[in-house]
Amino acid sequence: MEIIDSFLSFEGVQKIIRHNSDALSCEMTFAIYEPESGGIKNPPVLWYLSGLTCSHANVMEKGEYRRVASELGMIIVCPDTSPRGNDIPDEEDNWQFGTGAGFYLDAVSPPYDNNYNMYTYITKELPTLLREKCSIESNAHGIFGHSMGGHGAITIALKNPDSYKSCSALAPISQPSTASWSKSAFEKYLGKDPKLWRDYDATCLLEDGYRYPEILVDQGLSDPFLEDGLRPELLRVACENAGVNLELRLREGYDHSYYFISTFMESHLRWHHKRLC
Amino acid sequence: MEIIDSFLSFEGVQKIIRHNSDALSCEMTFAIYEPESGGIKNPPVLWYLSGLTCSHANVMEKGEYRRVASELGMIIVCPDTSPRGNDIPDEEDNWQFGTGAGFYLDAVSPPYDNNYNMYTYITKELPTLLREKCSIESNAHGIFGHSMGGHGAITIALKNPDSYKSCSALAPISQPSTASWSKSAFEKYLGKDPKLWRDYDATCLLEDGYRYPEILVDQGLSDPFLEDGLRPELLRVACENAGVNLELRLREGYDHSYYFISTFMESHLRWHHKRLC
Repeated sequence: MEIIDSFLSFEGVQKIIRHNSDALSCEMTFAIYEPESGGIKNPPVLWYLSGLTCSHANVMEKGEYRRVASELGMIIVCPDTSPRGNDIPDEEDNWQFGTGAGFYLDAVSPPYDNNYNMYTYITKELPTLLREKCSIESNAHGIFGHSMGGHGAITIALKNPDSYKSCSALAPISQPSTASWSKSAFEKYLGKDPKLWRDYDATCLLEDGYRYPEILVDQGLSDPFLEDGLRPELLRVACENAGVNLELRLREGYDHSYYFISTFMESHLRWHHKRLC
Repeated sequence: MEIIDSFLSFEGVQKIIRHNSDALSCEMTFAIYEPESGGIKNPPVLWYLSGLTCSHANVMEKGEYRRVASELGMIIVCPDTSPRGNDIPDEEDNWQFGTGAGFYLDAVSPPYDNNYNMYTYITKELPTLLREKCSIESNAHGIFGHSMGGHGAITIALKNPDSYKSCSALAPISQPSTASWSKSAFEKYLGKDPKLWRDYDATCLLEDGYRYPEILVDQGLSDPFLEDGLRPELLRVACENAGVNLELRLREGYDHSYYFISTFMESHLRWHHKRLC
């Protein structure tokens, strides 16, 4: 594990860390913001999962989370979105599959199963690394994310409600197993049987009995992916049927970009902080 | 003039505009953030001049100005740092000259004098364009910037105190006519006679009788360019000798990056707003 860059920002430290990942069989990079401790022992940890095409860097540069994380005393962890490197199987011209498109699942189909295990990486390997190598001891972890990462956050919270005490999403994909931009990736990672896809699809998990106390979602109404890819109505219905408390905030005029994400970052951080502290 | 992109953010609109520049004899792009008017007529305009290698986009993406600009009701204009394009004379491997390094001066030496007229572009052409094509009517303009752009802001304010009612800088170059990373650019743009360089050097302008009521500067003490390139002590002495009120805030541990800029962006915006409203 190596700290490859480190910047003082809003009195805390934005670090960029590189390490070897067993789950992904490659070298990985993630960003972690650690606020000045101010005497707080074991500050809460909030995980941000990014969307298609992003690395750890996009939200770190454009997400505008440091000011509020510093004020509240929260650690923010921003992992990459897929295994990455010359040896990793990929489809270079396809932004909806492979590099930058790990979908936070564990692949079962060769040749992808050796590397595309983002679910294990996010839920097991990286938390262990943070505890053992970065002395991050808190048990108060929350999770949120954007688009593919918003969906990832919801599925991970549904399957690990004891590990993540709060969950929210910005413009999440609701039902990737049927959406135009993700269905084919599910088939390649998980095989042809759609039953196997249900384990990594938020609406299916809700149908199949997984539960979480409450989820906050912000969604821009001028988001170009609203109708085809994101379909928040599917998540709303699935939550309603499952008795899960979904606060779905529809935002007139906002799109899918970091201009949208940064606008609502503060309210998500405060929402998580209330539930983590 | 063409709005090439437009994003709702913090209830205002971040626009990116392309236009033909007479002063620079090329097509130029700038960013402008317009807060929701909230009934305010003619909101104040704050100009941000970027540093070496940057375009309009760096501060727009990483500067974190929109939240506070929205709250205060200020327009933020972020121009490019030089003429740009295949036909513009440049030294491709030199990041301290040519593209991305216009130094906010009007060149007099061929072949640069046809394009490298950033001083005229910033102080005359772009304000006229904003008034005539974007209906921006305010007379309350302030100016600030970072590094090369912080220096540009100070020189422009010193030479146009009636046009810019407030001036600040983040990690400005103090004396580019003698600094290692800028002296050679001055020679290429302005010719071999150092007397001609004084007109675009903040400390020389102060020595030569130019005055401004007060200047705010933030400077990180872990800035790698502190000793060789920036030298805030030279600005401090020049301001002291000229009776110009300089508030120089030295920031332990901060570097030259957008992690530093974004940290102190809010206090600069509030400082300008007090003087513009």
